[in-house]
Amino acid sequence: NIDGERLWRSLMDMAAIGPSPNGGSRRLALTEEDIAGRLQFRQWVEALGCRCRLDEAGNLFVRREGRDTSLAPVAFGSHLDTQPLGGRFDGVLGVLAGLEILRSLHERDVRTRRPLELVVWTNEEGSRFAPAMGGSGVYAGRLETSDFFRAEDADGIRLADALEASAQRGDLPLGTPVLDAYFELHIEQGPALEQSGDPLGVVTGVQGIRWFDVRISGQSAHAGPTPMSHRRDPLLAAADGLVAIRDDVEADPSGDARLTIGELKVTEPSRNVIPAEVNLTIDLRHVDDTRLDELEAMLYRRLDAAASKAGVSVDIERRWRSPVTPFDPDLIASLDTAARERGLSLPHMMSGAGHDAVNVSHVAPTVMLFTPCRDGISHNEAEFAEPEHCALGAQVLCDAILARANR
Amino acid sequence: NIDGERLWRSLMDMAAIGPSPNGGSRRLALTEEDIAGRLQFRQWVEALGCRCRLDEAGNLFVRREGRDTSLAPVAFGSHLDTQPLGGRFDGVLGVLAGLEILRSLHERDVRTRRPLELVVWTNEEGSRFAPAMGGSGVYAGRLETSDFFRAEDADGIRLADALEASAQRGDLPLGTPVLDAYFELHIEQGPALEQSGDPLGVVTGVQGIRWFDVRISGQSAHAGPTPMSHRRDPLLAAADGLVAIRDDVEADPSGDARLTIGELKVTEPSRNVIPAEVNLTIDLRHVDDTRLDELEAMLYRRLDAAASKAGVSVDIERRWRSPVTPFDPDLIASLDTAARERGLSLPHMMSGAGHDAVNVSHVAPTVMLFTPCRDGISHNEAEFAEPEHCALGAQVLCDAILARANR
Ligand SMILES: NC(=O)NCCC(=O)O
Ligand SMILES: NC(=O)NCCC(=O)O
Repeated sequence: NIDGERLWRSLMDMAAIGPSPNGGSRRLALTEEDIAGRLQFRQWVEALGCRCRLDEAGNLFVRREGRDTSLAPVAFGSHLDTQPLGGRFDGVLGVLAGLEILRSLHERDVRTRRPLELVVWTNEEGSRFAPAMGGSGVYAGRLETSDFFRAEDADGIRLADALEASAQRGDLPLGTPVLDAYFELHIEQGPALEQSGDPLGVVTGVQGIRWFDVRISGQSAHAGPTPMSHRRDPLLAAADGLVAIRDDVEADPSGDARLTIGELKVTEPSRNVIPAEVNLTIDLRHVDDTRLDELEAMLYRRLDAAASKAGVSVDIERRWRSPVTPFDPDLIASLDTAARERGLSLPHMMSGAGHDAVNVSHVAPTVMLFTPCRDGISHNEAEFAEPEHCALGAQVLCDAILARANR
Repeated sequence: NIDGERLWRSLMDMAAIGPSPNGGSRRLALTEEDIAGRLQFRQWVEALGCRCRLDEAGNLFVRREGRDTSLAPVAFGSHLDTQPLGGRFDGVLGVLAGLEILRSLHERDVRTRRPLELVVWTNEEGSRFAPAMGGSGVYAGRLETSDFFRAEDADGIRLADALEASAQRGDLPLGTPVLDAYFELHIEQGPALEQSGDPLGVVTGVQGIRWFDVRISGQSAHAGPTPMSHRRDPLLAAADGLVAIRDDVEADPSGDARLTIGELKVTEPSRNVIPAEVNLTIDLRHVDDTRLDELEAMLYRRLDAAASKAGVSVDIERRWRSPVTPFDPDLIASLDTAARERGLSLPHMMSGAGHDAVNVSHVAPTVMLFTPCRDGISHNEAEFAEPEHCALGAQVLCDAILARANR
């Protein structure tokens, strides 16, 4: 059995690295804080005699050898980077539950048949460098390496340079090691498990995600003497378009469509100037790719209509498309079995968030396990997962991993 | 007669100080560039034997003595500060037309009965420090000195400190000198004169202006797993409210209402995070104060309705209120007379922009004269006024000033 208290202590120790102002975490990918978190983690696993390897994307692979070293490893993990004002559990739980599993095996000197591989993926959040799930994306061949390496943060720093500067670029070629299976434990980041009262949920797949960069260009002019009819105002055009898109999304019959404008920036803002340009991002999601296609087409039409009404021009670039992703039926069943043996019957659910597991699922059988999170709140400093849920998640994960690794 | 070519050269010389990327000007109030512009200007007027004095707000008074030094001076001027991406004429034309008048009088050794006072007001634009027309505001007792001095720019620098650091805080007490009359020549900053084909316009007053700071607070959460119904999204609430206010403003029967959102900022933006907070500014104007009261009340209602629909909270602070301001009938007539003597019949018009003349009108008879500006575009690097219009404006201004000063 894993040690839930030790798991909780390591979660709190990690949270002390790069703390955010109100009790959350701020370890944006490949910043000083993220690297400090990785170093702490490496100390922990190296103390267990595990071997750490970095691939060219900075993905960190922690190997615990099996009895048969020629077999592909059973892998598990998640990420340590966070949002600018992020929580203490998103990603971290999956990595440190993996650590707890390695510690428990080490303590009891248990050796599995297959090797185990605990993975920390690079730049999962996508907040500093778009897109999200970048490290697992290039590992699994789902993201062009050029798109990954040349992504720039808000200060114009390229991901490739941030990797180099932080000494996280390794020499393991992308796509290695090849995995026998991949398990990821994560907080749900939504309200479903809390509402149903279940202590865990088995994730059968992940909804589709599309990211857009939108630039709306008008003409700056004076706020006072310029008649409304004479304006080409990109900000009011944006407001118009966004309200229309939101109405479409909310009218989706399934109730499953999601729309988020996370960034909106006025170029050279000044109170008494009609802006010349507005840049914004759109995050659009649905559990059904066909419906997502329709919503995307609608989004273009709404923005075009708002722009032409306002006499401004609009440029929309799709930055990322992550299709609806089903997980592996055998691994789903293995989690059900592990849960049953602990006396639990777990609900099956789709994930609203993207995860590294989405990418890995294209190169290895993959599954995820969710814990509830308080008030369904994530990407927020207040994010919280109950210690018992964390421990139970790590336990069921451990059971399923051992079953697979000893098969 | 004034020298239109010399006036144009000094406009272009001033534009060379703090040039903006695309041929406009960037001399934000009390920045290095603004101070460099003021120093150039002081060299020009000191070469004419004029005396420069700074008051406590950094307003610069340039005195050319009259035959009767005991009389209150006839004043004219405007401002040298600009928007972040501003034009070369907004404010500068009024100051440099004043310079051209002083040069012409100096050249011909003409002495007026009353002294002349050319004024450069501090922080007219309001872009770095809100509100606008601040220097003339405290001069005329229309703005609390504490509100003026403690205004902060985006970097948290207080206006009082910027005045001190740039050595622009003088010892002339606020409210002095007392003026016999105040004339201000300015570009129209709107399309009316260009549309009517008039070379100049006599300004009979200025519309009312209200500035608001709006903060909308919701709850950050994950873009993916959070159902639309579970969100408290301040950005979509802002979009909703702004579209409703815009519709009210556009439905105004007079067609004279104006609405501008010049700044909108998402706190800790991240693509896959529903924002926690959005801050924005609103600039609302009308030529009728009663109607402006109604629009303001509507604005509060619209934002409240959008906020309560979205489950977010909204805080609205009125930062500035500049009432509809009529100019002096005698001075209006004096401009008509000066124009008639040059063979012109000028239209009367209201100003859409606020000007230092608004404040000064509360302590001295005041009037303004407008030149057309190309495509009605101002607060834009492309702002342009024809050399002939600038020269004609300076000439009619000169004629009216001399008539008043020799009365
Ligand atoms: N789990 C998580 O927060 N991933 C970031 C990718 C996304 O935006 O869904
Ligand atoms: N003239 C001018 O641009 N003044 C700034 C004050 C305003 O916003 O009207």
